[in-house]
Formats: sequence, structure tokens, C-alpha cells
Amino acid sequence: MNSFGRILKVSIYGESHGHEIGIIIDGCPAGIQLEESDFLADISRRSSGEIGTTSRTESDLPYIKSGVYRSYTNGAPILISFLNENIDSSEYKFSEFFRPGHADFTAFKKYRGYNDPNGGGHFSGRLTLPIVAAGVIAKKLISEIKISAELISVGGSKEIYTLVQNAVTENDSIGGVVECRIPNLPVGLGEPFFDSLESLISHAMFSIPGAKAIEFGEGIKSAASKGSEFNDVYINNSGQTATNNNGGINGGISNGNEIIFRVFFKPAASIALTQNTFNFNTQKIDTLQIRGRHDACYALRTPVIVEALAALVIADLKLISGI
Amino acid sequence: MNSFGRILKVSIYGESHGHEIGIIIDGCPAGIQLEESDFLADISRRSSGEIGTTSRTESDLPYIKSGVYRSYTNGAPILISFLNENIDSSEYKFSEFFRPGHADFTAFKKYRGYNDPNGGGHFSGRLTLPIVAAGVIAKKLISEIKISAELISVGGSKEIYTLVQNAVTENDSIGGVVECRIPNLPVGLGEPFFDSLESLISHAMFSIPGAKAIEFGEGIKSAASKGSEFNDVYINNSGQTATNNNGGINGGISNGNEIIFRVFFKPAASIALTQNTFNFNTQKIDTLQIRGRHDACYALRTPVIVEALAALVIADLKLISGI
Amino acid sequence: MNSFGRILKVSIYGESHGHEIGIIIDGCPAGIQLEESDFLADISRRSSGEIGTTSRTESDLPYIKSGVYRSYTNGAPILISFLNENIDSSEYKFSEFFRPGHADFTAFKKYRGYNDPNGGGHFSGRLTLPIVAAGVIAKKLISEIKISAELISVGGSKEIYTLVQNAVTENDSIGGVVECRIPNLPVGLGEPFFDSLESLISHAMFSIPGAKAIEFGEGIKSAASKGSEFNDVYINNSGQTATNNNGGINGGISNGNEIIFRVFFKPAASIALTQNTFNFNTQKIDTLQIRGRHDACYALRTPVIVEALAALVIADLKLISGI
Amino acid sequence: MNSFGRILKVSIYGESHGHEIGIIIDGCPAGIQLEESDFLADISRRSSGEIGTTSRTESDLPYIKSGVYRSYTNGAPILISFLNENIDSSEYKFSEFFRPGHADFTAFKKYRGYNDPNGGGHFSGRLTLPIVAAGVIAKKLISEIKISAELISVGGSKEIYTLVQNAVTENDSIGGVVECRIPNLPVGLGEPFFDSLESLISHAMFSIPGAKAIEFGEGIKSAASKGSEFNDVYINNSGQTATNNNGGINGGISNGNEIIFRVFFKPAASIALTQNTFNFNTQKIDTLQIRGRHDACYALRTPVIVEALAALVIADLKLISGI
Repeated sequence: MNSFGRILKVSIYGESHGHEIGIIIDGCPAGIQLEESDFLADISRRSSGEIGTTSRTESDLPYIKSGVYRSYTNGAPILISFLNENIDSSEYKFSEFFRPGHADFTAFKKYRGYNDPNGGGHFSGRLTLPIVAAGVIAKKLISEIKISAELISVGGSKEIYTLVQNAVTENDSIGGVVECRIPNLPVGLGEPFFDSLESLISHAMFSIPGAKAIEFGEGIKSAASKGSEFNDVYINNSGQTATNNNGGINGGISNGNEIIFRVFFKPAASIALTQNTFNFNTQKIDTLQIRGRHDACYALRTPVIVEALAALVIADLKLISGI
Repeated sequence: MNSFGRILKVSIYGESHGHEIGIIIDGCPAGIQLEESDFLADISRRSSGEIGTTSRTESDLPYIKSGVYRSYTNGAPILISFLNENIDSSEYKFSEFFRPGHADFTAFKKYRGYNDPNGGGHFSGRLTLPIVAAGVIAKKLISEIKISAELISVGGSKEIYTLVQNAVTENDSIGGVVECRIPNLPVGLGEPFFDSLESLISHAMFSIPGAKAIEFGEGIKSAASKGSEFNDVYINNSGQTATNNNGGINGGISNGNEIIFRVFFKPAASIALTQNTFNFNTQKIDTLQIRGRHDACYALRTPVIVEALAALVIADLKLISGI
Repeated sequence: MNSFGRILKVSIYGESHGHEIGIIIDGCPAGIQLEESDFLADISRRSSGEIGTTSRTESDLPYIKSGVYRSYTNGAPILISFLNENIDSSEYKFSEFFRPGHADFTAFKKYRGYNDPNGGGHFSGRLTLPIVAAGVIAKKLISEIKISAELISVGGSKEIYTLVQNAVTENDSIGGVVECRIPNLPVGLGEPFFDSLESLISHAMFSIPGAKAIEFGEGIKSAASKGSEFNDVYINNSGQTATNNNGGINGGISNGNEIIFRVFFKPAASIALTQNTFNFNTQKIDTLQIRGRHDACYALRTPVIVEALAALVIADLKLISGI
Repeated sequence: MNSFGRILKVSIYGESHGHEIGIIIDGCPAGIQLEESDFLADISRRSSGEIGTTSRTESDLPYIKSGVYRSYTNGAPILISFLNENIDSSEYKFSEFFRPGHADFTAFKKYRGYNDPNGGGHFSGRLTLPIVAAGVIAKKLISEIKISAELISVGGSKEIYTLVQNAVTENDSIGGVVECRIPNLPVGLGEPFFDSLESLISHAMFSIPGAKAIEFGEGIKSAASKGSEFNDVYINNSGQTATNNNGGINGGISNGNEIIFRVFFKPAASIALTQNTFNFNTQKIDTLQIRGRHDACYALRTPVIVEALAALVIADLKLISGI
């Protein structure tokens, strides 16, 4: 359940305010150069620090605990772990409230009250940190393929800086759209049924907390289009198409054109603004003000997570198919 | 690859113009009443016949070949098969063209020319017929849960009849949006990472040919929203929320409110209108006119497929969790 | 549950006295020449007919229902089915007895009485027929590797013909040992933990009805040996060893020497001799005489099944590793 | 590959002389009381210290890094880790030899020289320590079921103490047989094909370094028996049988009688006696004397490992079936 992949398989663990979090990467071929410093660039892209991101600061230093010998992967499972250092659970005592939009209520019910509530426990966005680390390894396995994601809008607009600034000022949060492009994926990755490239990518992306929609190519517009408008006609021998409305995928399989997809992130559920919600102690609607350290625009930190998961999907398919 | 599910597992087979198509359903508990007539209502909902659907007519009679004894499932794998009867491959001789928007090109490349090109082979929308049959069984396993999907728009508008009619008249095709609702799913289905309810449902939905986007709740709008607008606040002890922007899912887990998601289908790639596309024989742009029997609005036939796949996901989760 | 393999995956279905039995082989690469006649040689090796095998005669003709186009695999799942023709369930009315040594009791309890009791239902040895067919395809995928199994003893002795003849005469049955050898497997197949070559092969072999023990190399003797006797010392650059007590596997991984393992089959549970056993109607010990058509030495028919399953394991590992 | 289980899934990592070793246990229900002290009894049973076991001494202290909150499992993945403290790799410089009977050669070839050779790296018997820890958790999940394994012979004899003493004196090693009994397993666990109880148990057992054979019930003798001798006849209403030659399993499914199986362990490959083997530097047969700290009778330490893996199989089946 907390694992993903068929040949290159990742298994995640940890809670936001526990001792450590981390990930096992199994199935990575031997002989890949890997050192702890390799993770820092992508980890830094995910970090808080910018305006609109949480003030919780963690060193986020990766520890390679297994699977690497003399700076090369040795064929055994790789464990990458991160300590939780900056833990302050004092703000997370919601004895009477389940925070709206969070997993508090579902986790409490699913685990019959045994879940770790501090900082969201295992549901925390902090768990995307080891995913980013796994993505660094996956990117090395497909070094010939470039995956790049960026935040293309927040609040429905490209005025990203202004809208994030407003959300901070208003003690509110704001959603955003991340676009991912993979320009040079070879033809043939993905399967017709159940493991289509769209199936695998969407499966991975909906592991990111806050992801609520995805489109491939002009997927949303497609439902409002005619075939004569939407079809991508071929223009040369290598299968290049005049348009790329299908986002580089036909029949669930990469067609050699650029892969394009967009992930829609909801605004962070934690906002400092006072909210009306149910008080489970008093059994009445009450006001809740969430303290703690939160992201006004969590989507700012997600492009590198989207890249990491896309890289895991592609690397796994490459290992499966041998392409 | 051509299978789906963990406890309730389906495996699909067949080509559009081959001898037969079908599906194995493994992991179905013994003692479920099941006869061939049980499949007919859902199969009929998927059938062509309406305006805007293909004129290929098949009897679509299901054969239970195993797993049922004296009208009850016996605990062994269930094979449901369908004969291909109305096969006319004469229109599918695309020696020099790969049809735009179809899997012809990707299948040819992936399988190095060994794929069955007739009617799209294994990539055909006809393969959704056994999926509908598996869905009938899954629905029986979760008979207390109602899943209903409907086509809510085509061509970006609710004027479904008119727009489909226009597409037929214009020898064109048109896309559409299917909305699925599951009003009474219990709290607790889905996992925080990698097997979130959104991950599993989207994985399943992107197995349907032509699905290019999905949103959960108001997922697309979420990216343009503020937290103060989007958060669903609790209003009572059972976790009911005032709004349902999250579509009944928090932290990847069902929260007891109605599950809502929408699948965006592109227009059918096969259109009778002449298209300009690359001729792989002459190595020049050429005109292509696709004959054969096609759907002007394939989305008309998809609601029951969406329901079937949703039922498979939910039934599998129910068997896993014992909820 | 009724499936096996990771890349090359088989899914089995059918009951002994149902309409048909068969198997889906998924993950088979495109471009493998395959016709129905290719299956006949191995099917014939499994057939009854010899002394000591059942008098149930079936044509055992394989039907390729999907996955093959113009005599080559097309990359889609392959369904191979067999009709059940010679069905006579009249001898299988055990309303008051569960046959000793059979799955009657466990099936009845597991499936709460809904199981198909005729001829053992899904538990029948007849289900090994589609496994043999899948093995034919797997053998084609590893055509450079020779797998050969033979019955090396029955009743603890190499006097196979005599002992089988005695069992027939005495209305009894007799067990036997099948030895499988794979002389030229490349180094490197298998994994250190959980998917060792021994784990995968034994997992497959214990799917054969009646298999009750397995040893790799001199595995049984190993427990009575000293290291100085048992260690296989290397004698040349390619890793050849002076002895092969480890059966070609070290650390779960093929070492380039011949793979050797032996599967121990119990005597067929169905015997014509009268047995004392519990009568569930009268709730007393009673006498049971099993009629019907049975194997006096079922092990005679198993070498080709052992080969088929070994081939499936090896072909899957080859596809996974790319070796 | 380095994982096992379907609902209760374990993933192992670490090398003998690396920083740490450990295991993720995913799928464990919330609400199980768990503290680090719970592991100590079983860990102690696996430890060295007795005559015939290695002089490498490790504190073997388990660290719960995730998945437990306030002494109860919280539903998230559980990571248990162990530090490697007593690391002395000086004896493991086999630049010119691959140790006979070890995984040195296969690991070197499989991982193209990138494997960690120290102490066997990921292939070390030390990796069974986290498996024992996972077994402790599995045993808690099936607390109503008692699993007990013991060493019943070494060197082919029950004179265990004497024979181990001799092996120590002779600088040799000796193999042994571990018998496992599960007296009160409910009827119905296991599947007819591919996931028979024998398949799952053997799959697990052959993950233990040195396991080379397994029998269920009187599996080895079965091949030398007649049906009239081997069949277990029922004697009462609950399915109890007069004999238990089948080891509590019919048709791959537990039948309610005691589960009995025996695992055959070869003698430890590392012996202090001088061995002749190939020198890969000089390309000639040469003499090798292995120093370091080794087990004269590794089988002494395996009963608790056998129990752990059996518990993982049974707990997983229990979670799958809901029995």
C-alpha cells in the first residue's frame, strides 16, 4: 500500500513529528554513482524558505543507510532517511476539532484513534521529501530523458508572486497548477489496459497531498472538442504530430512527442484565518483558528515532487521494457 | 500489465476482430448469485444503437465459462467471454497511414509490427465490454453501495442531443464529460501514499480508451481557489461537511461524504471527415478518409464503464480492509 | 491468487467438469511464432494413456483465443483454452464423504459449500493442462536454455514399471520423485531475499497438486553433512565447481552450474481400494470405495508440468533482468 | 524483489558491514501494542553466544523509527532498524578467492563487481535479524495461533550437542533440520493454484540463507508410499484425521490439523579448515583458509527465523481472508 513500482519499487515510512522519515528504493541496478550530495539540489527546490512556504525549517539532510558501497549503488535496496529535528507538536492539540480539508478525520476513523496526529503524522506533506530523494535516483536511471515541471499558475492566474503575497497577507492559502513536460521519451512506454502511461502517472501524482485533478495534453478541453479539431495528425516519418493535444500519449503508450500533463493542487488546508467548523466535544459548530507553521501556497514546492514521481514511473517502465 | 486489483483481480484479453474477448475475475468470494442474464442490463447501457454510436452491432452475449456452479460463484476464477461475430476488417487496411489520435502508430512501434491492426486489435474500445461484465460482479460485492455515472456534457455544453446530432451530420466526433457519484461509501477506504483513493480510481479510469483528464470534487477549480473558500467544514458528528469540494476524499481516504469525480473523454479519433496526415509509403502529407463503423460520441457509452471500474476499485478496497 | 509471475504473468481458470479450462499468458513479447500445433508435443507428454494413468480421455486440443496474429504473438494477452468433453460426474456424488487426501473437505469449508465438487472442481489435476500450454510459450522465450525433467523413482525405487504395475494390480496408487535439470542457465538469476531462485521455483512447484517436498541440489543430504563435504569448490575461471551439491544456486542466485532440483509427489489420493473414513451423514466411521477414473501413478504425468513451471520462472526472471 | 507479502508486506534493507540493517512492515493494522522490548526475546533466540555460533557479538537492539505512537501501532509503515556496531572487515579481503558455497561469486557477477563484499554484504545471515523483528509483529497479529520451530537434528542425528561440538573441534561446520508446527490453524488458508499454503511457506523459507530443502508433513516419504498408506482418513466431524501425513494441508489449503513442515539447512559455508579452490588471480587451484567469525552450526539459530517467516505468511493470509 505504501509502496509503488514493479521493478523499481519504493516503500515509504515515517511521520511528520516522529524520529525519522525515509524511503527504500529497491530494484535499482548496481553501478550508479550516488552520494548524499547528489540529493541536495532537488531537496533544496522542495524546501520552504520562499515567501508563501512554511517557516518550519529542517536541515533535510539525506542519509544513505544501505545500498551504496564506495559511492556506487551495489544492487541491494537503498534506504534514504531524514531526521525530524524541528519538532514542535504543541500547536497540534486538536482534541475537539478535526481540521477542515485535512486527513485528521479520515485518519482518526480509519485507524480507530491510534494514528499519530502531530503534524498530520504519516499524512504530512513532509513525506514528499523522501519521494524527492527517490526521484533523484530515478532521474539518474533515465539520465538521457529530461523531466521538468513548473508552477504555471496560482489562483487561476499567472500572477504567481502577487497572488501568493496576497494569500500570505490575508492569512489564507491558494491553489496552483503544475505542468510537467518530458520532451524526449521514446515511443512504446505504457500498456493498453490498466497500466496505460496515464494510469501510472496519475496513480503516482495522486500520492501527492493536495493533488485533486490531472489532465494529459489538452485533456480538459478535449471533452469540449470535435475530433477534427483534436486529432493530432502526423507530419513526418518519426511520428511527429502537427499538434500535441494528446500530450504525447496514444492508446496509453508514449508516441514520441512531448509528454505533457498538468496537476491541479488545492489550496493548503491549514490557514490562519478563523474557520467555523464542528466541535466534537461540545457537539456544536464552533470557531477554529489553526496555529502552527504552514504553507500559504504549498503548490510552490510541488514541481520537484511531480518530477520525482514522473521519473519513478518512467524509470520503472524503462527497466520493465528494456527500451 | 493487463490486470488490475489486489484481492479482487481482473485480467483482460482479446482483440477487436479476433475470435473472442473476455476477462478473468479472480478473488471473488464464493456464494454470490450469478447468471448470464445478470450482465445484460449493464451491457445494454454500453451498447451501440443510439444516435451517435457505431453501427457495428454485436449480440454481446456473455458466456460464463468458469467460476460459477449452480448459479453461484464457487470461489474459483470466473471467466466471462464474448464472441466477436460482426467482423469486417476490410475497412482497416491502413498500409500507408497510421490513423491520427489512434494507437495504430504506438502499437506498431511497441510491438514491432506484430500487433493485430484490425479494428485496433487489443486497443479497441470493444475491450471495455468485459470490463462492464466484471463491473456487474463487483457491484454485487458492494450491493449496499450505489455507484452512478452519467454523461453531463458534450462539446462543453449540456445540449447533449443537439451537439451529438451536429457531430453526426458533420461527419465529425465530439468529446464529453462523465460524472460519477458514490453517495454512501463508508469512511476509511484508500491509503495515504501511493494507493490513495484518487490514485486507484484514476489508475482505473485511464484504462478507458479516450480518457484524458480526471478531477475529484472541484479539483480543477481548486487550483484557482483560496483555502478559505475550498475547505469543507464539518457540520456534524458523522463528519458531514457543509460543502464537498474535496469530492468525499481527504488524505487519500474516503471521508463519508459523497464521492464525486469527473472523467474527461476526448472526441473519438475516427471521423469520416477527410484529414491531412502523413503517408508513410509516399513519405508525404496526404489525405486520409476513414471508413468503417464508428462512434460520433463515444462518451455516450462510457458511463457504465466508469461505474464498472469504480465498482472494481471499491470492491477490492472493501475486501482488503474488511470494512 | 490464481496468478503467477511479475512480467510474464499467467492467470488460470476452469473446473474439471465445467465448460472449459484455460490460462492467460500476459507479458509475452510480440513476434514469437506460435500455432496450436506447437503445444501438442508437451500436451501429449502429460496425457493419460500409459499404464498407471487415468482412463479419462480428452482430446486436449488447445485453442488460441487471443494474443496471436498471423501465427505470431502480437504483444496482447494470450488466452489458451481447452474444452472439457469427456465429463461424467456420476461417480462424484460424495454427499456423505470427503475423500481422504483430497481437497474436498478444505474446498467445502473455504467456499462454504459453494465449490464445484465434480472431479475436484478447480482443484483438479486437469488444471495442469493449461499450465503445460503456458510452459510451451515460456520455453520459446528461453529457447537457448534447455529444461528437462524426468521421473527418477516411484515407491522409493527406480523399478518404475514394476511398481506402477503393482499399484494398478492392487487398486492402489504410488508416489514418485521428479528430477529437473537446467544445464546452461546464465549466472545471476534470482534475488538474495524473498525472490531467491529457490523461493520462486518452489513457489511454482507447490502449485502442482500432490507436490509435498522439494530439494535443491543435495538439499536433504545437506542437513546431514559437514561444510568440508558439502562446499562446492571452484575449479576454473567461469565459476564451474568440482561438485554441485548446491544445485547451481548460491545466495539465491544461479551460479552458472547446472540447476538441479527434485519434487516429491505423494501417491494419488483416489484409490479403488476400500478405505475407512468418517461418514458426515451418519457421523460414524464408515467404508468408502472411490469409483471413477484415476491415476495409479500421477507422478508419471508430472515431469512436463515441472518443466513448464520452471520455464515460466526462468522466462520471467530473464524478462525482469534482461540477461 | 526484496519484499514479501500482499497485505502485510515486508521490505528489507542493509548490508552486514554497512551502517544499519532493517525492515519496513507495511499493512499492519493500527492498535497493536508494540515496544522495543517486545522484540528482545525472539532476538535473543537468534543470537550467537552458544557453542557453535559466531563470536561476532552485536547488541542487536531494535529501534522503532516509525509506525508506532504512544506504544501502539498507528497504521502507518513500521520501520525497525538495527545498527551494525561490531564491524571488522579486515578478514574479508578475498581479492583472489570467491568463498565456496557463499554468494560471493554470484553477487560479483550479478552486480558486476559493485556489490559490497564485506561480511557477505546484503547476502549476510545478519539480514535475518530484521526478519525476526517482523515476525514478532506478525505473531502479535495472530496471537491465537501458536507457531513453534525447533532444531530436531544436526548431521543426520539427534545427538545435536555432540555433533556441534565435534564440528567446532574439527574447524568444520554442520547442517541441520528445523521442524515447525502450527497446531491450531483454522481451516481455509491458502489457495488452490500458485498461492497454495505450501507455495507461500516455501517461498518464505527459501529466503533464509542456507535453506536447501523443505517437506510438508511426510513429504519426502510420500514419494515412496502407496495411497493406502499415505491417505489421512477423517475420524470426526471437525475434519480431524487419524494420521497427518499431509502436514495439515490438502489442495494447498489448511485442513484444520496441525501444520508440520521441515526445513533442511546446509552446513555453514565458512569453515576454518583449509579448502582447495580456484584462485582467480593466479588462475590456478590454490588453498584457501577462511578467517573471521563464523557459525559451526548456523542451523542452531534458525528456528526463530523459521517461526518469523511462517508467522508473516499466516498473518498475511489471515488479513487477506478475514478468517
